Order: sequence, then C-alpha cells, then structure tokens
Amino acid sequence: SRNDMDHTLFKMALGVRAEALLNELLTLSETLTQKAAAESNTLIVAYTHGQPAQPSTFGHYLGAMIEVLNRDAARLSSAINGLGRCPMGAAAITTTGFPIDRERIADLLGFEAPLVNSYGCIASVDYVTGLYSAIKLVFLHLGRVVQDMAFWSSFEVGQLYVPNALVQISSIMPQKRNPVPIEHMRHLSSLTMGRCDMVVDTMHNTPFTDMNDSEGEVQQAGYAAFESGGRVLRLLTSFIPACTINTDNVRRNTDAACITITELADTLVRDEALTFRQAHEVAAGTASAVIAKSIPLGDGHAAFMAAFEGVVGRKPSMLQEAFRHATSAEHFVAVRNRTGGPAPEALEAALKLYQTDLQTLRTAQSERLDRVTTASKRLDAAFNSLLET
Amino acid sequence: SRNDMDHTLFKMALGVRAEALLNELLTLSETLTQKAAAESNTLIVAYTHGQPAQPSTFGHYLGAMIEVLNRDAARLSSAINGLGRCPMGAAAITTTGFPIDRERIADLLGFEAPLVNSYGCIASVDYVTGLYSAIKLVFLHLGRVVQDMAFWSSFEVGQLYVPNALVQISSIMPQKRNPVPIEHMRHLSSLTMGRCDMVVDTMHNTPFTDMNDSEGEVQQAGYAAFESGGRVLRLLTSFIPACTINTDNVRRNTDAACITITELADTLVRDEALTFRQAHEVAAGTASAVIAKSIPLGDGHAAFMAAFEGVVGRKPSMLQEAFRHATSAEHFVAVRNRTGGPAPEALEAALKLYQTDLQTLRTAQSERLDRVTTASKRLDAAFNSLLET
Amino acid sequence: SRNDMDHTLFKMALGVRAEALLNELLTLSETLTQKAAAESNTLIVAYTHGQPAQPSTFGHYLGAMIEVLNRDAARLSSAINGLGRCPMGAAAITTTGFPIDRERIADLLGFEAPLVNSYGCIASVDYVTGLYSAIKLVFLHLGRVVQDMAFWSSFEVGQLYVPNALVQISSIMPQKRNPVPIEHMRHLSSLTMGRCDMVVDTMHNTPFTDMNDSEGEVQQAGYAAFESGGRVLRLLTSFIPACTINTDNVRRNTDAACITITELADTLVRDEALTFRQAHEVAAGTASAVIAKSIPLGDGHAAFMAAFEGVVGRKPSMLQEAFRHATSAEHFVAVRNRTGGPAPEALEAALKLYQTDLQTLRTAQSERLDRVTTASKRLDAAFNSLLET
Amino acid sequence: SRNDMDHTLFKMALGVRAEALLNELLTLSETLTQKAAAESNTLIVAYTHGQPAQPSTFGHYLGAMIEVLNRDAARLSSAINGLGRCPMGAAAITTTGFPIDRERIADLLGFEAPLVNSYGCIASVDYVTGLYSAIKLVFLHLGRVVQDMAFWSSFEVGQLYVPNALVQISSIMPQKRNPVPIEHMRHLSSLTMGRCDMVVDTMHNTPFTDMNDSEGEVQQAGYAAFESGGRVLRLLTSFIPACTINTDNVRRNTDAACITITELADTLVRDEALTFRQAHEVAAGTASAVIAKSIPLGDGHAAFMAAFEGVVGRKPSMLQEAFRHATSAEHFVAVRNRTGGPAPEALEAALKLYQTDLQTLRTAQSERLDRVTTASKRLDAAFNSLLET
Repeated sequence: SRNDMDHTLFKMALGVRAEALLNELLTLSETLTQKAAAESNTLIVAYTHGQPAQPSTFGHYLGAMIEVLNRDAARLSSAINGLGRCPMGAAAITTTGFPIDRERIADLLGFEAPLVNSYGCIASVDYVTGLYSAIKLVFLHLGRVVQDMAFWSSFEVGQLYVPNALVQISSIMPQKRNPVPIEHMRHLSSLTMGRCDMVVDTMHNTPFTDMNDSEGEVQQAGYAAFESGGRVLRLLTSFIPACTINTDNVRRNTDAACITITELADTLVRDEALTFRQAHEVAAGTASAVIAKSIPLGDGHAAFMAAFEGVVGRKPSMLQEAFRHATSAEHFVAVRNRTGGPAPEALEAALKLYQTDLQTLRTAQSERLDRVTTASKRLDAAFNSLLET
Repeated sequence: SRNDMDHTLFKMALGVRAEALLNELLTLSETLTQKAAAESNTLIVAYTHGQPAQPSTFGHYLGAMIEVLNRDAARLSSAINGLGRCPMGAAAITTTGFPIDRERIADLLGFEAPLVNSYGCIASVDYVTGLYSAIKLVFLHLGRVVQDMAFWSSFEVGQLYVPNALVQISSIMPQKRNPVPIEHMRHLSSLTMGRCDMVVDTMHNTPFTDMNDSEGEVQQAGYAAFESGGRVLRLLTSFIPACTINTDNVRRNTDAACITITELADTLVRDEALTFRQAHEVAAGTASAVIAKSIPLGDGHAAFMAAFEGVVGRKPSMLQEAFRHATSAEHFVAVRNRTGGPAPEALEAALKLYQTDLQTLRTAQSERLDRVTTASKRLDAAFNSLLET
Repeated sequence: SRNDMDHTLFKMALGVRAEALLNELLTLSETLTQKAAAESNTLIVAYTHGQPAQPSTFGHYLGAMIEVLNRDAARLSSAINGLGRCPMGAAAITTTGFPIDRERIADLLGFEAPLVNSYGCIASVDYVTGLYSAIKLVFLHLGRVVQDMAFWSSFEVGQLYVPNALVQISSIMPQKRNPVPIEHMRHLSSLTMGRCDMVVDTMHNTPFTDMNDSEGEVQQAGYAAFESGGRVLRLLTSFIPACTINTDNVRRNTDAACITITELADTLVRDEALTFRQAHEVAAGTASAVIAKSIPLGDGHAAFMAAFEGVVGRKPSMLQEAFRHATSAEHFVAVRNRTGGPAPEALEAALKLYQTDLQTLRTAQSERLDRVTTASKRLDAAFNSLLET
Repeated sequence: SRNDMDHTLFKMALGVRAEALLNELLTLSETLTQKAAAESNTLIVAYTHGQPAQPSTFGHYLGAMIEVLNRDAARLSSAINGLGRCPMGAAAITTTGFPIDRERIADLLGFEAPLVNSYGCIASVDYVTGLYSAIKLVFLHLGRVVQDMAFWSSFEVGQLYVPNALVQISSIMPQKRNPVPIEHMRHLSSLTMGRCDMVVDTMHNTPFTDMNDSEGEVQQAGYAAFESGGRVLRLLTSFIPACTINTDNVRRNTDAACITITELADTLVRDEALTFRQAHEVAAGTASAVIAKSIPLGDGHAAFMAAFEGVVGRKPSMLQEAFRHATSAEHFVAVRNRTGGPAPEALEAALKLYQTDLQTLRTAQSERLDRVTTASKRLDAAFNSLLET
C-alpha cells in the first residue's frame, strides 16, 4: 500500500539527511577537541552573569562545549535509531492475508527490524518528532555558544580575535570589525530551530491515524532544517579553529577586574593558616586598594602587606614573588586540577573521555551505515536472482 | 558556590518529578497492555484519512498506542539519565584549589558520577532542555490518540462508549453525552506541551555562561508541566479501561462502509486463482451492487455471483456461506496474522514484546531510584560519622 | 547606508506579499458571504463538545467564519499599516549631517511618512513580528474550520458533501472518499503557522541594535509563509463553494439526536404557560420515549401527550400538526431571529454588516496601493527631471 | 446558557487584566519619555553588529525604544478592543426564541455592542489569541532592549551604570557587580512569551465549535502571563530611571574605537570641497595613524594634516581647534538634526510626538474604562428597579 511504502521511504530519506548532519556534528566535536588540546594553556576570562569572574583556559571552555555537543550527538544518534524499524508490510493498516515476510523485507531494505504494530506503522509519527526535537536542541545549545562568541569578539571585550577573512571590515573605521559569521550562525541556528518546531507542531492535535500531516509536503518542508543546520555546523567547524584568543586583552581584563583575588584568599587559608573569614577580609582589602590605584593585583604586594597586618595583626610570610605567583592567572588555573577543572592535566584527562565518547558515536554510526550498504547489496543480489528464475 | 549547588539541587528536584511522571507513564502502558489483551477480539473500524478503511481490533489499536508510549517512555528515561551527572565541586566555574573529591560527592548525593567539565557544570542546560523536550513529545503523541477518542465517541460514529460517570449529560437531550474528559485531556496535553516549550525556548539566545535563565524562577515555572501532564496520564489511565467498544455501531459502520471488500478480492486471488486485476474488478462490482441495495456485504452473494460471471466468464466456486465468511470482519482480522497484524495470535506475540520493553524501563527506573535511596543512607552514615569525630 | 536601505527594501517587499495575501483573504470573505446568502435556508446540525446540539443553517455557520475572517483581515490590514513608515535617511544609525529631506524620500518611495527615530529605523523589528503574528492567527483560525470540515465530511457524519473532483476515490471501495484537500489545508495551515513562528522567534533575545537576525536570510526564509498561506486561501476559496450540505444526512442526524427538543420546551412555556421546570420535564419525557422507539421527534405526538399529562395533569392544547411544527428544525431556526441568530432575516442583516466591514477593508487596501502607484509615478518624474537638468 | 455566559465572563476577566497591563506599559512609556528628555545630551556609543559604530545620546536610544513601546501599546489597545463585543444572548449556539434584547444586555454589561453571529459567540477564540499574540510581542521587543542593557552594563563596556541597590555585589571582588534585575527581566520576558504561546497554540487544530480548549482551565493558565509580564514592566519602570550613563567609559570607548571618523569625512566634503572619495581616504589615513599611536582622534590634527596633504596635494584650511571640534562626539550628534536624528532639537520634536501618541492611547483606555464603570452603575440601577417592581 502507499501507506506503508510512504513511511518507509520517508524514514530512509530522513536517515540519509540525519546521518549527514550527525557526521558534521561529530566532525565539529573532533575539531573542537583538537582545538581544545592546542589551547589548553591559553588563558581566558570566564564570565558569570555577564561579568568577568575567574581565569580559565580556552581549552577548558571548549571542553564544556564539547560535552554538550557529544550529548547532543548522542541524542541525535538515538533519534536516528528511531528510524531503524521498517513499516513495510503493514500495507494499508492491518498487514495482509498473503504470506509476506516482514523480517526479510526489513532486512533487505537495510532496517534493523520491522516496526511491529501495523497500525502504528502508518500512524505513529514519533520517528519524525523525535528526530526534529533532537535536532532543535543541537542548535539551541550551539546558539548559546554563539552568543558568547559575539560577546567575546566585541570591541571592548576583545577576548576572541576573528581573523580578517571572517570579518566585515570598514576601510574608514579600522576598528569596526563586524564578525558577520557569528551573526549568521545565530540566525541560522534560530531558523533551524524554527523549522524543527514547525514540523513537530504540525502534528499537534492531528488524529492518530493515517493522515497527510506527516507526509510528503511536511516531510519536504522539514528538509530545510537540515540545510540551514548543516550550514551552521560547517561554518562553526571552520570558524573556531581560525579564531585565536587575544592574550593582551585577556591580561588587561583579568587585571582590571581583579579576577584572581579569590585564589589569594584560598592560598592564605592553605599557606598562612588563616580562617576563611580572615583570608577573605585580607583579600577584599587588597583588591580595594589595587583597584583604587589602578594597578594589577600582581603589583599589589604592599597593599596586601597592609591589609594582612590590619586584619591578622602580624606580617604575612608571603613575599613579593610568592604574592605575584599566588595572584597570577597561571597559578589560578594550575591549582584547579580537580576532575573537570581547567588545569592542563585535568583537561587532558577530560579530552580523552570525550574522544572515547566520540568513538562510540562514530562506531554506532558506522554500523548503521554498514547495515544499509550491506542490505543494498543483498537486495540487488536477491532482485537479480529473482530475475534469473 | 551557589553556582554548582543550585544546579545540583535543580537536577535532584527535576529527577523526583520526572521519575514520578515516568512511573505514571509506565502504569498507563501496563494498563493499556491489559486492556489490549482483553480487547484482542473486539472488532473496530480502523480509519485512514478520517474515513472507514478496514476492520481491526481495539486491542490492535491499543497496541499501536502502547508502542509509541513505550518509545516515549524510553526517551523520557534517557532524558532522566541526563540528570545523573553531578555538578557539585565545580564551585563558581573552575573547581577549586582545595582537594575535594568530586567522585565521592557525586556518589553520596546519589548521582551516577560527576559531570566532568566544571564550566559545563554551571553553564550547560541540556539536562533541562532534553528533559522538557522528551516530556513534550509524550503529550504531543497522546493528544493525537485523544483526537481519535473524540471522533470515535461522537454521536454519529459511536464506536467508543464512554460510561455515564465520565460524560456530561443533559437531562432534556438524552443523546447529548459530552465526553468532557476527552476534551480535558486534549487541552491539558496542549498546556503541558506549551509549558515544556516555554522552558526550552527561554534558553534561546542566552549566553552559554552561568545565567539566571536556567535557574530558580524558570525551574519553578516548569514544574507546572509535571502537574498538568500528570493529570493527563492519570485521567487516561482510568478512562481507557472504563470505556468499551459499541459493537452494534461498529457492525453498522463496517457494513455501511463495506470495509471488508479488499479481503474478498484477496480471497479470490488465493482461492479462485484470479489475477489481481480480475479479483479487484469482481470485488468492485460486488461492492457497488450491495451499496446500491443498502445491504451488508455479507448478504451480497447474488451480487457477487453476477459480478464474478461478468468478469471471469464462469461461476465462482465460492458458495453463500464461504462468501459470508470471506467478507466478514472476523475473517478479515483472523487472516492478518503477520508480524504486527491484528489477528489475536499476532497481537499476543506483540504484547509480550511490549511487556519486555516495559520491564526493561521499570528495571532502569528501579536501579536509578535504588541508587538515590542507597546514597541517601550512605550520606546519613557519613554525616553521622563526621559528627562523631 | 546599507542599514536604512535594507529595511526600506524589506518593508516594500513584505508589503507586496502581504497585500496579495490580504487580497486573497478578502476574496475568500466575499466568496463566503455569497455562499452564506445562498445557504441561508440550508439546515445543518450544529455541534458543541463534538456532539449534535441544535439545528442551524450552513449560512449561519459561514457567518461565524466570516466574522473571524474579517477580524483577521483587519488585524492583517493593521499590520500592513505598520509597514508604512520609511526608514530611509536614518543612514547607518543617526541620520546624517547633510541636509536630506526624509519626508520627501518617504513620499517618493510610496510610504505614508518617515519612521521617526533613526536608531529605531534600523533596530526595530516589530514591522516583521507584527506582520507574521497577524498572519499566524489567520491560519490558526482557518485550521479550526478545517477541523470541522474534516468531521462533517466523515463517512458517518456525512453532513458536508465534497464533490468527486475534490476527493481521492478508491475504485474497489466506493464509500472510501478521502477528502484530501481538507487534509492539505490543515497541514498547509500548520506549516504556515510554523513559518510565522520561526521568523518571530528568531528575534528572541537578539540585541536591539542593527543585526542580521532581521535581515536578508531571515526575510527570505519568511516568504515561504506567504506561499503556503496563499495556497490555503486559494484552496478554501474554491473548496467551500464547491461543497454542498447533504440534507438527507442532516435530517437523519437531526432526528436521531433529537436536537430540536429544547425548542419544544420553550414553546410549552410560551404557548401552554408551563413553568420552565414543567416544560423541561415534559420535553425530557418525550425525548426519552421517541428515542426508545427510534422514531423522529416529529412523529412523537402520542408520547408528548402522555408526558404532558403525566407532568401537568391535563391534556396539552398542542395538536399533532402544531407539535410536528414546533419540533421541526425549520421552526427551530425560524424563531431564532435575534441579533446574530440563524433565522434567515437575522442572517441577512448580519451579512450586510460583513459586506460593510469588507468594503472598509477593501477601501483601506486601495488607498495604500494607490499611494504606492502614485508615488512610483512621481518618483519616475522626479528622476527624469533630475536627468534633464 | 453556560456557553455564552462563560465567554462573556472570560472577556470581562481578560479585560481587567489587559487594561492593567496596558496601564503599566503606558506608565513605562511615560517614564522613558521623561528619562529621554533628561538624557537628551548624554552621549553614548551606538552599536551595529555588536561593535561601536557612532556616537548618539541616551535620549535618542530611549526614543527608539519608546516608539516600539507605543506601537506595542497600540497593538495591545487594539486587541483589548477585540474584547468589546458581548456574546450574551447567543445562548447555547443559536440565540433563543424568547424576545431578549442583546443590545441592551451588552450595554448593561459594559460592552461596546453584541458580538453578532451567535455561533461565533461561543466558537470564535480570536479575542484570546489576538490578545495573547499582542502581549507576546511586547515582551519579545522588551527582551531585545534587555539584551542591550546586559551588554552595556558588562564590566568591559561599562556604558550603563546600574546603582548598587540593583546589583548583586561580591565583597571580595569589588569589580564583580552582577546586574541581576537585567537577568530577571530577560527570563521573565521569555516566560511571558512562552505563556502567551502556550495559550495561543492550545487552540491549534481544535474544532471551530464550542469546546473546552478555550475555556476555564486554559483561561486560568494564561493569567500567569499577566503576572510575569507585569513584573517585567514594573521592574523596567524603576530600573531605567535609576540607571545612569558612565560618561568616562563612553568617552574611552568613543576614542578607542574612533567612531566619529565618518563625520570628519563628511565635514571635509562640506568645508574643504573634497570629493567623497578623497574625504574618505583622508579620514581613513587619519584614523589609522591615531589608532597606531593610541591617541584620541581629537588629538590627531598632525596626522590629519599629513593624510590630507598626501591625498589632496595641499594643506587643509582646517586648523587644530576646528579639527578637534569636527571630530568630537558632541559635534557629531549636533549636526544630525534631521527628522528622528539624535540632535537635541530633533529629539525634542520626536518626544512631543510620542507624548501625543501616548495621550491618544490613554484617552482610548479611559473611554473603555468609563464605559465599564457607567454600565456597572446602570446595571445596578436596572437591577434595583426590577427588585422594586
């Protein structure tokens, strides 16, 4: 019947597109993993509530992004598995009185197995809604990273340097460097999300029966999501490796915002045996003083000495160089060597995990693609042997 | 830090709600499986394009519904697994220089493991978006079944009998039986979908950094989705078993729409060795004749004889009783004994698969819940032993 | 600057498309008004809660639809007015130091006036969001009528007859008439809504500054909404006039559901001076009796007599013919001659109002289109006179 | 009937809430108009593509915001007018045979007039969808301004100073000032949008007939949009006046980004009779030179002289002071005195227009509220006179 044939073909057509998108997603994840390894020592300012908060590394930031991406890829992979059951043989609704072998049909068409309930074969649309829901999330999450890229590459923040080839430049205003790929990734992500919603919401309040709401025109309309989504993934895959961190600006912002100050307090607890309250008070006093003088925290040993004596009633044992070290962004990052922290060893360990995750996803995809290829050959052989008889 | 603590608590709070919802979903699936077994011989009219198409059974229809439900439950279960990684120890963004043991914290709080990247711990929101996306699909799909229920229980179709306790009755119009629970399930499903979208879309174009968009107020607002969604599940769990199929109306509609006619054609191919084209022509002629006379197809042997002779040029071997049998809805269903077909044995086999799926989901949930309970005991013990020292 | 030029061009391009869509909407409204007049005596069953409730006329139903349509057209017209202010002269953001005349530019380009604030000229997007929001509502509301059409044309209800040219027919199942245009109008309406949402939601959480989120690619993507929406309007404009009411089925459903019974009670209050409670009781008793006997209410005078005597203790003065009249659908409709009721005179008065509304909308559109045409001529003249000097 | 009574009550209840929201919107507009007047000379950096582009004033920026707000208020006011037609008297669907006076009922209940078609009275939901669509846009648009506020108040940009009472402060990091009200306004706006969508989309694919999808529970669920939306409006109404522009940072960013450079080119065309190409070349050369030396453009007269001679082959007539003036942000703004430009007189003229718009909206609201109050008195009087007879 046209009923089971249509959904079988829709599943195959979606499968081709979804595997291609997943492949691009995995390539992006791989690219980011390499970039993260290369940038494991590159300091950045990490933000909370839109304000400078702590030093971290670009590699560490990318690690956070990779984790989400890999989970998104796992969700997408799982949604692709939802395309693996074959509707063929359901006929119009109820299968047929003729002795067809649904398992063999499924096998020859490259599916994992038949989709069991024949009414469900022509009525259930969760293979569509599950897939587009998974795709939407990819672009919702990437769009959030894009917002960070926009902020980081703003003139005043200047943390992310986008090379000239990727910015729109004004000859009269040398400082006006519009990072248009970032804008494009944002609205293309939004459009992709909107297209996914469009398909999913088209099913809302439709009867659970064979209807055109999930068929030809709607399937066709949905394919635009793969096009705009694919563009975002390819753009990002070339964008991120091309960008660099402007370390001068990172240093400037780090100093101006005094973002290593919490580590000074922590060090005082560990090395000077202060209570948390005391350490906090010394650090706050030091921070106020260096900001009042507009000097980097690292140059504030004198201010620190004064604050310490005021609070603790004795001189600290921490000398100038030790102070400079304790308040440096490098030290801040280096001691944060816990699971998932920004210290290079911690990041290295994490990146290995991500590669394993990626490999698992790659393997699952290969197996699916092999299944389809092998089936295609078997189908040809079976068809030819029919012709010969 | 408030940052890692908040997301840890949000995950725990969502986990409790999501497990409760999953439990209600699995209970519904179980209830439907029992109902499907009990209704495996109950004939219904199955519709395509909103028109009567073929006979099937209520059990078969419920089987289609159960399959979607079980896949929805698997998606939800997988989304709940996404709550299993613990953000604690990420501190403000970058972990800490103090020697905390993130694995042990995760374990004592009942999580599977730490969520690795510490920046991701406070910035990634896919545990929220993944969960609400999965929930949305449950109610999108149930809403489609609800639309069938509305149609089936309409006065003119009358296939589904909703008992008096569940309809709004008019004393003056005895035929006016408004199936209000169906309406309530529809708009409560829609509201639940809308609440899921609200939470997911709130994250759109927010920075990938620690921000309030995924925190207290938004988390709180999302909980309403569990309330309205839970109501739908409980309502449906009591509604479906309480309803029965009005077999008189099914028979009337089956006869009037002549929906067994395709099986007559198939039988002629198998038993009278006609070509498909011939069989189709005979069946079409028979159908036209009985509809013209307003008689059930089963009473149309004479018309069949005439059509057969006209097309084939000989009398059929099929006698009156065989004809009545071949055109009966019971026979139609009985011969559709392929994988996933409506014949009782095929359904019985399918229901066993669904029970296995359900058991797998139940086991996964139990293991998660046990992990939490056990951890809670270990946490108490660890806490007490700290107090003692 | 490209900034003000782009938005000026986007407004003009949207204007062309939106006026075309509005024109199709007004044509549909006109078509429905004619159909409503032609069907002002055609009885239908009106439904509440999906169940037969009262007799009405097809004209009356279409009147309800026209009212919504005219309000939707007014909303769309108002949104088109939102395109009437010209951004030209805002330049990059802040106008220019050169003595340009923004009023004259606006005039020559066919706009109503300049959009005042120059920053708003390049940053505000409510001309986009306002327009697509208005379009979404058109198709949300039409989709609801489409759901009624689907129900009315179902085999069992059979109230709406869709001619053969507009149904998908099965040669073997003469009763299987799939009304595919109805399905197409439903999913095309849903896709159109989805496309409108896509454009509107792309603006979510974007900065209020000149950005690409409202520009080229997004504008382009939105145009698909006009295509799918236009198809729905044209389809509906040919579909509704082509359909007829199956009066036999209406009669059958009217009788079977006893939907004139409330008017019997009302008549008893007016003509037999019963209290509402008494009248209600007599009517309820009569209805029960005729349904038990499976006879039309009009044939139930004997049952009525018995019920009346049982409740009131005397014989009614209403004789057989008066009873048949009082319980007829024709009478039911005829006495409902209040403002907005289904009685033909009430409908006639209403249709005149709708024509006035339509005329107002047509005039507003003409004035806008004239303004553009005239401006275009003046622009040519101004341009030529510049060339001559 | 419950049918017409329900929708009458829903309209009245929505009206109360919508008028309150509109009132808060108009109050915000008023507040912004006062703030804009007060800040008509306060320089800011205006951004395009997220990068510094040109000088403007805070007043000018607020003017852009007010224009959108007033258009949103007009859309909301128009949607409130959509609540003004009274469904009472439609009864269950078709009015009644009793001689009720729908015009008088509408009048006594404070409506403008009856909603004509009685079937539409109980079936059409565009009073709901139209209202929530209009509300959604208010918060979509405000959310975009909120994104600017977030950027402006970031540590590195520092253009907007949020007073201590409105930021979350860290005692240890004096520079860490989290502008939490901005975050709250963003996610509360998003939640409000989501709630509006929820109500509107609940109507999707529901039948156009009396159904519960638009009734009690859904109406109730929608009210949450008024709560969260009202909070945003009140928060913004106190937030904006409390904030100030940090003119030191504006000066720093203006200089660093050399954003007055285009006006230098324009001035050269006007005052030195250069071609646009020449002027552009001189300006570009000057900009490069001052940026290379890290000096403000105003201090770059020597660089300008060199660039001019290099391009034009003669010395410019523009002396040091004239150069400083021509490249100042104050001059940049002052000469942009076109309709809608940032020059104070242009802004003053615009603000007068906005006050007129606001007054129109206030008057329309007063008339609606008076109608309701007056009707309420007349209803009491009519009721009392009934009691007396």
